[in-house]
Amino acid sequence: MSSNPAGDDEIRDPIREAHRLWEAHGWLEAANGMAMVTSIVRVHQLLLERVDAVLKPYDLTFARYEVLRLLAFASNGRVSMTRMGSLLQVHPTSVTSAVARLERQELVERLRRTTDRRVVLASITDHGREVVEAATVRLNEEVFEQPGLAPAEVLTATRLMTDLRAAAGD
Amino acid sequence: MSSNPAGDDEIRDPIREAHRLWEAHGWLEAANGMAMVTSIVRVHQLLLERVDAVLKPYDLTFARYEVLRLLAFASNGRVSMTRMGSLLQVHPTSVTSAVARLERQELVERLRRTTDRRVVLASITDHGREVVEAATVRLNEEVFEQPGLAPAEVLTATRLMTDLRAAAGD
Repeated sequence: MSSNPAGDDEIRDPIREAHRLWEAHGWLEAANGMAMVTSIVRVHQLLLERVDAVLKPYDLTFARYEVLRLLAFASNGRVSMTRMGSLLQVHPTSVTSAVARLERQELVERLRRTTDRRVVLASITDHGREVVEAATVRLNEEVFEQPGLAPAEVLTATRLMTDLRAAAGD
Repeated sequence: MSSNPAGDDEIRDPIREAHRLWEAHGWLEAANGMAMVTSIVRVHQLLLERVDAVLKPYDLTFARYEVLRLLAFASNGRVSMTRMGSLLQVHPTSVTSAVARLERQELVERLRRTTDRRVVLASITDHGREVVEAATVRLNEEVFEQPGLAPAEVLTATRLMTDLRAAAGD
């Protein structure tokens, strides 16, 4: 990814350099937290680049992949829009725009309950199932089976992220 | 944040549930990596919500804050656009759009070297310095000094994220 072509005043690790500057400015209590937050932001960017590269041939983003994956897991392949937002932990407007795009791609269709017309369901199409199964195989092989850490460290990282989620109210 | 108001079929932890389904589908080698990647994506979202809430009164995003912070650290408050991209590990077009917005906010100005007119420098204004120092105090107090993990775990999480960055070529 970024090989930092900055010449002879190249900084090897911008986050370590930021940590040094934070301490030099007397922000001692904040330096480690800054480095952790900034590191997570950077790792998120690098992981999404890997995920997006795998999903690009399927014309999917990770957000739309997650919607399809959830629907493929659901009984009868359908979930209400409301419930999908809470399961995916995203804002209703994000679900709406993802599903609208997936519908244009003919991977999902929207249905309305005849007994309660306020309830809109997203329903995966046969083509959507084919696409999400193929994309899952590739994501598993190319990202999730080689996430960049040894198996024990993957578990440690997940536990720490789970603690961070809990601290933020998840 | 999302309190998951899904009723009596509420799923307590969507990521744990996804991990269970991954294993149930026989994707055993990928389940832990999937949980780690998805957890990092979620933590990134939660941390950025906290950071954005602090920066909103300053009309800054984290990306624009990082540009301002870098310029305030730099000698004479100036960095070339090219070098800024490599230090912030972002695409040149992202730097250009962030700096253009900061210039409209009168927090940054763009200068051209008279000796080499191809080199464009971003330079922080006095007002930019005031804003970034105030924003840094608030970010330190409200996010970086209480990142959501105990001090030793902050270091462990940072080390794991550093290893993940290295594995991805950082």
